[in-house]
Amino acid sequence: MHHTEDSRGAVADGATLAGHERFAKNIENFIGTVKVPVGLAGPLRVNGLSAQGDYYVPLATTEAALVASYHRGACVITLAGGCTTLLLSEGVSRAPAFAFKSLVDAGNFVVWCLANMDAFRSVAEATTRHGKLKDLRVNVEGNHVYLIFDYSTGDAAGQNMVTIATQAVCEHIAAECPVKSEYAFVEGNLSGDKKASAQSFQNVRGKKVAAEVRLPRRLVERHLHTTPERMVDYWRMSALGGVMSGTIGVQGHYANGLAALFIACGQDAACVSEAAVGMTRFEVGTEGELYAAVTLPNLIVGTVGGGTGLPSQRACLEVLGLAGEGKARALAEVCAALALAGEISIIAALSAGQFAGAHERLARGKKPAVAHEVAVGPGEGGRA
Amino acid sequence: MHHTEDSRGAVADGATLAGHERFAKNIENFIGTVKVPVGLAGPLRVNGLSAQGDYYVPLATTEAALVASYHRGACVITLAGGCTTLLLSEGVSRAPAFAFKSLVDAGNFVVWCLANMDAFRSVAEATTRHGKLKDLRVNVEGNHVYLIFDYSTGDAAGQNMVTIATQAVCEHIAAECPVKSEYAFVEGNLSGDKKASAQSFQNVRGKKVAAEVRLPRRLVERHLHTTPERMVDYWRMSALGGVMSGTIGVQGHYANGLAALFIACGQDAACVSEAAVGMTRFEVGTEGELYAAVTLPNLIVGTVGGGTGLPSQRACLEVLGLAGEGKARALAEVCAALALAGEISIIAALSAGQFAGAHERLARGKKPAVAHEVAVGPGEGGRA
Amino acid sequence: MHHTEDSRGAVADGATLAGHERFAKNIENFIGTVKVPVGLAGPLRVNGLSAQGDYYVPLATTEAALVASYHRGACVITLAGGCTTLLLSEGVSRAPAFAFKSLVDAGNFVVWCLANMDAFRSVAEATTRHGKLKDLRVNVEGNHVYLIFDYSTGDAAGQNMVTIATQAVCEHIAAECPVKSEYAFVEGNLSGDKKASAQSFQNVRGKKVAAEVRLPRRLVERHLHTTPERMVDYWRMSALGGVMSGTIGVQGHYANGLAALFIACGQDAACVSEAAVGMTRFEVGTEGELYAAVTLPNLIVGTVGGGTGLPSQRACLEVLGLAGEGKARALAEVCAALALAGEISIIAALSAGQFAGAHERLARGKKPAVAHEVAVGPGEGGRA
Amino acid sequence: MHHTEDSRGAVADGATLAGHERFAKNIENFIGTVKVPVGLAGPLRVNGLSAQGDYYVPLATTEAALVASYHRGACVITLAGGCTTLLLSEGVSRAPAFAFKSLVDAGNFVVWCLANMDAFRSVAEATTRHGKLKDLRVNVEGNHVYLIFDYSTGDAAGQNMVTIATQAVCEHIAAECPVKSEYAFVEGNLSGDKKASAQSFQNVRGKKVAAEVRLPRRLVERHLHTTPERMVDYWRMSALGGVMSGTIGVQGHYANGLAALFIACGQDAACVSEAAVGMTRFEVGTEGELYAAVTLPNLIVGTVGGGTGLPSQRACLEVLGLAGEGKARALAEVCAALALAGEISIIAALSAGQFAGAHERLARGKKPAVAHEVAVGPGEGGRA
Repeated sequence: MHHTEDSRGAVADGATLAGHERFAKNIENFIGTVKVPVGLAGPLRVNGLSAQGDYYVPLATTEAALVASYHRGACVITLAGGCTTLLLSEGVSRAPAFAFKSLVDAGNFVVWCLANMDAFRSVAEATTRHGKLKDLRVNVEGNHVYLIFDYSTGDAAGQNMVTIATQAVCEHIAAECPVKSEYAFVEGNLSGDKKASAQSFQNVRGKKVAAEVRLPRRLVERHLHTTPERMVDYWRMSALGGVMSGTIGVQGHYANGLAALFIACGQDAACVSEAAVGMTRFEVGTEGELYAAVTLPNLIVGTVGGGTGLPSQRACLEVLGLAGEGKARALAEVCAALALAGEISIIAALSAGQFAGAHERLARGKKPAVAHEVAVGPGEGGRA
Repeated sequence: MHHTEDSRGAVADGATLAGHERFAKNIENFIGTVKVPVGLAGPLRVNGLSAQGDYYVPLATTEAALVASYHRGACVITLAGGCTTLLLSEGVSRAPAFAFKSLVDAGNFVVWCLANMDAFRSVAEATTRHGKLKDLRVNVEGNHVYLIFDYSTGDAAGQNMVTIATQAVCEHIAAECPVKSEYAFVEGNLSGDKKASAQSFQNVRGKKVAAEVRLPRRLVERHLHTTPERMVDYWRMSALGGVMSGTIGVQGHYANGLAALFIACGQDAACVSEAAVGMTRFEVGTEGELYAAVTLPNLIVGTVGGGTGLPSQRACLEVLGLAGEGKARALAEVCAALALAGEISIIAALSAGQFAGAHERLARGKKPAVAHEVAVGPGEGGRA
Repeated sequence: MHHTEDSRGAVADGATLAGHERFAKNIENFIGTVKVPVGLAGPLRVNGLSAQGDYYVPLATTEAALVASYHRGACVITLAGGCTTLLLSEGVSRAPAFAFKSLVDAGNFVVWCLANMDAFRSVAEATTRHGKLKDLRVNVEGNHVYLIFDYSTGDAAGQNMVTIATQAVCEHIAAECPVKSEYAFVEGNLSGDKKASAQSFQNVRGKKVAAEVRLPRRLVERHLHTTPERMVDYWRMSALGGVMSGTIGVQGHYANGLAALFIACGQDAACVSEAAVGMTRFEVGTEGELYAAVTLPNLIVGTVGGGTGLPSQRACLEVLGLAGEGKARALAEVCAALALAGEISIIAALSAGQFAGAHERLARGKKPAVAHEVAVGPGEGGRA
Repeated sequence: MHHTEDSRGAVADGATLAGHERFAKNIENFIGTVKVPVGLAGPLRVNGLSAQGDYYVPLATTEAALVASYHRGACVITLAGGCTTLLLSEGVSRAPAFAFKSLVDAGNFVVWCLANMDAFRSVAEATTRHGKLKDLRVNVEGNHVYLIFDYSTGDAAGQNMVTIATQAVCEHIAAECPVKSEYAFVEGNLSGDKKASAQSFQNVRGKKVAAEVRLPRRLVERHLHTTPERMVDYWRMSALGGVMSGTIGVQGHYANGLAALFIACGQDAACVSEAAVGMTRFEVGTEGELYAAVTLPNLIVGTVGGGTGLPSQRACLEVLGLAGEGKARALAEVCAALALAGEISIIAALSAGQFAGAHERLARGKKPAVAHEVAVGPGEGGRA
């Protein structure tokens, strides 16, 4: 290892070492902590089913202009009276996979499983206080069978909970089912864990939440320096650009805000890969206002368990007013509202950053008027 | 805001406040720092073009068992003599979009642009010391044109660099091109920025790196408690499971390790959404060994700029021996090696976690022997 | 119009004109018929739930070597005792879309719809003798709601049937639902109609069928001039190649056989775009045999209605023994068996077409030994 | 075989049998022909680079209302003065795949290949009169290398031409390259052959063509019974619906028209699976008109070779005025124009088919006014 004594102290500082036992359940081979700066975006007014009020959203990032961009979007939403959010569904799945000698065995196995759902529920729910087995779906591929178990997980993100419950069901199957598999695995990679997947829009993974707002035209013009029409032009062009690049869903930069909020609030940052998928839609409304909506089907978030109990992470949840039991749905709604704020801000920046008039400016040797907008544009960041 | 004085201190602690000016260029509306625990995985031996040696990889996460899982994979790789890595290509693109009155105008615009590549290069490279404009590709959709500018960016991740350079080119086009656009934007969402995209495998975004290792059979059996054949069975089943779930690429859980390394080392954590895409392949070799390879086309990493200069983040880069100029390629190769370690470890865990014999164990009231394996299995985490 | 009298006769021949009224329900602005040559592949032995026996499959194509390739695959399957097929599920969906003033209206609309499923079923089933409304799923995107109605359609492909039934349900909703939409459409393009879609593997569209066979090693060696191992090498490499090209599913050339069978048997040839999606898997079995399986989730086929009643198309269905009522499931199983035959044949051709020894042959001025294999290789065809 | 003498005659009729030798190069195991009814859509006015004039497009289909729907779209385009088309690029690729002992070998192989492009060109072009090797791209995945050879193919679709040329290059590589592969195949399934693939929008496969038209508002209202605004509402909703279903590109029903034209004109009908991918965009123009555009990147069409020389297929090409040498580009432009006509017609039908007023009609026992529209709506067809 190559680091100097001095830099070591930046990670293994005194306060961290003194409280090292607080991290014991969250990390192995512990050497200290990395300090990620946190900024606040907001107030972000949310009129949701579970989230209601003005939120100051803690965002942990090292990318310059990211907080400023989300802050701008949040303030504009709040000026418009806030956004509406709606948790549409929730659940976490695990998909064990079974290989059989033949397609006929695979078919018989499926028949047996569908007839034993009650027993599976008992076995699964005996392993957990909060998890409930809600549904069983089946996917057959040749002589392979994937069972997709859908669970509700209370206020925890629940990824480990559903693994343990499904492991128990699999052992029950191994013990009881007359159709024996050649081999089997507790997860066949069909559940979308830690990766973007097109099935998101058919299922839910974590929590599915929509958020919408109507921004009056004068607000868009005064605060975002563009027009609803131009923002819709950008939305259309970027939506099609995304499709042609082969992305899943239609959106700009959910990942920026979600990663920052996940790190600040003790969520699983790797879940950004699956959470940052969804649908953004902008339209010009009948009164010339901007209608903006986001729908995120994969918000894997929790307010208990995981990193949510660590001191600074819990403090960030407290800044939001969403620490502890009974807050997970509200946190998911805030995530969607934050994503909406980010989409509005970046699309406004890109819409305002026109090259029209560039000739004039260049001729007069002026700096482009759009410099600030670019600063909160794509890349969001201060890298050289 | 709802937090107590006490929890506030967890974010806005004395040391952070004393050094707050160090964060000024990386964050706005600063309130303090979140402390993310860091563990070391390794040694991870890498025989690469740029990365050569034994690396101790700092991983910042709050998910229990994540470091342990990568550590196990790293150690097995090292026992086998290390993995080979190869940086295959590098570049960052930005894709401004232009709308025209007609398809004919769009066609004429493309012709003009292709004839002006030299001028574009001069304009772009005047804005940056390290960036080079390497290529121009074109995508026409009806009367819309997307120009895709490909840059090399030296040791910086370069996302802001390419935005500024492309902004300059766009202003040049606005001033000089006789075919005038109706409107235009500096990024048309075709560059894959902050999202998984299928075009990854046609292009590069950041750095494209492959890593491979051959694990002798006895190593697999002794240290991973499974066999090469069973790991390949799992690979095949999970590869097809992923395809059926509609993912991009074939892989397990790159996101876990990359997110943890990105947070520790001051990378842009939001880039996990695009970086955690790639191809994993496992085969049984001619001598019964396990051949394992990963190929990641989208590693957006840098060793200067962004968060790499913050104290604890720089310390983590120093732990790797990869801080500062001239280290970005090696960092990318370490990322691929880490992803390989993670795939080996999780696939081994899932392969070893069989339900065979479950009947016996259940009958005797024994705890399943596979509990440890599950602990480093999917979900990787300690959530309740 | 530029054609000569002579060429006109090739389309508007005497027999066609004499029986022109037979085509009246299938075409408008009728000018004659195009004659597509039909060849037989088989016997293809199928041991299915509905399809049982040796089938001679009529394939209408103008691509040289296509019939020969499928014929070869069919014969090898038959030599091995036939393939097993299993119809896994069936149904056709239609997805009307509704736009509302707000997300709240959208939510209330969904609640009302879910409570009115029984009424929807009555209304839908009053429009059709054979169609049954089986399920209602919901997809919310901002203030837009897509209702996905799943139907069974008997022996008809059923695409028009489900449109008429869904139109009736939509009119019922418009009349009865207290939550009024701003506008609505009978299909919101969420049902996968006439296009490949990733949701295939979560749902069914038409009929989902799997087919599998085990080919003894000596059969592979003698008749396909390759080995199970090399065919699996090809399968692996082409599966990953397909994923990297951004395809949906894992397969080679289903489209060749399905298009030819659809044209011959009066199916909707445009449905090839959605039907030619699925999963192919090859493995080496424990006794050194080749295990090969295909799973096709989107087989939109019928044996009554559409083009199935036209003289030559009905004759082709009769060649199969699958004309008229009660045969649709068997036809779907034959489709899967045919796709399996094609995958085996083309993968064998590509596996046998090695370049090893090319040096020797080239040195001696010999023609490559693989010429025949290439003839039934990719492209399948005789274009210059 | 189960067919009666009578039905046999529908396939093996006297005229077919008398001219059976004309089919010898296009089919094996010949038993006769299937007669697919052909209708004309048009005139379709095209103002293209290669296609110029009023076309009557022969469509072979058994789906009722399909010709009527395209005919309506074609006539509306013509009334508006015709559509503009532009062939954007052309080429066909073949992607041989090579497996090596190690990543290092793979890297060395790539270096050797890139240095031998001139030799590859000589070898490839010695096999064909019309094909030209234009480019070589490389894709490395672990120790596997896919070489992507891009060709131009003149007026032939060229799929077999590029296979033969690439086979020759592969034999050259096997003979000359010092880095020996473990095994290799002439096609690694990376070229998008016979399947929809996301890479379409990065590359071209066959011919990439865009078509656009501006329909004055009064035309839309009078002939399509809807408004540009409502058609754009539908476009937006169906574009997002398609994305959520996991399709590639944004479009409605290209497959209907392309399959019908391909069958009529002796094209490879299996190519519908790849050709029916693209981008449709509708906007309201500044004068209240409808702007409609389609862009299809994968039009695999030819006017010589394949089925284009068969009597009735050639007659259909003659109806178009596009038989023989020098016509392939115009045929591709007509394909795009036809797809545009179809999108306009179906989106108009769905936009006009509102449920508003349904209450009144139902109350009075009236038939829905939208019945005609539904007839040319989704499903397009006459199945029961």
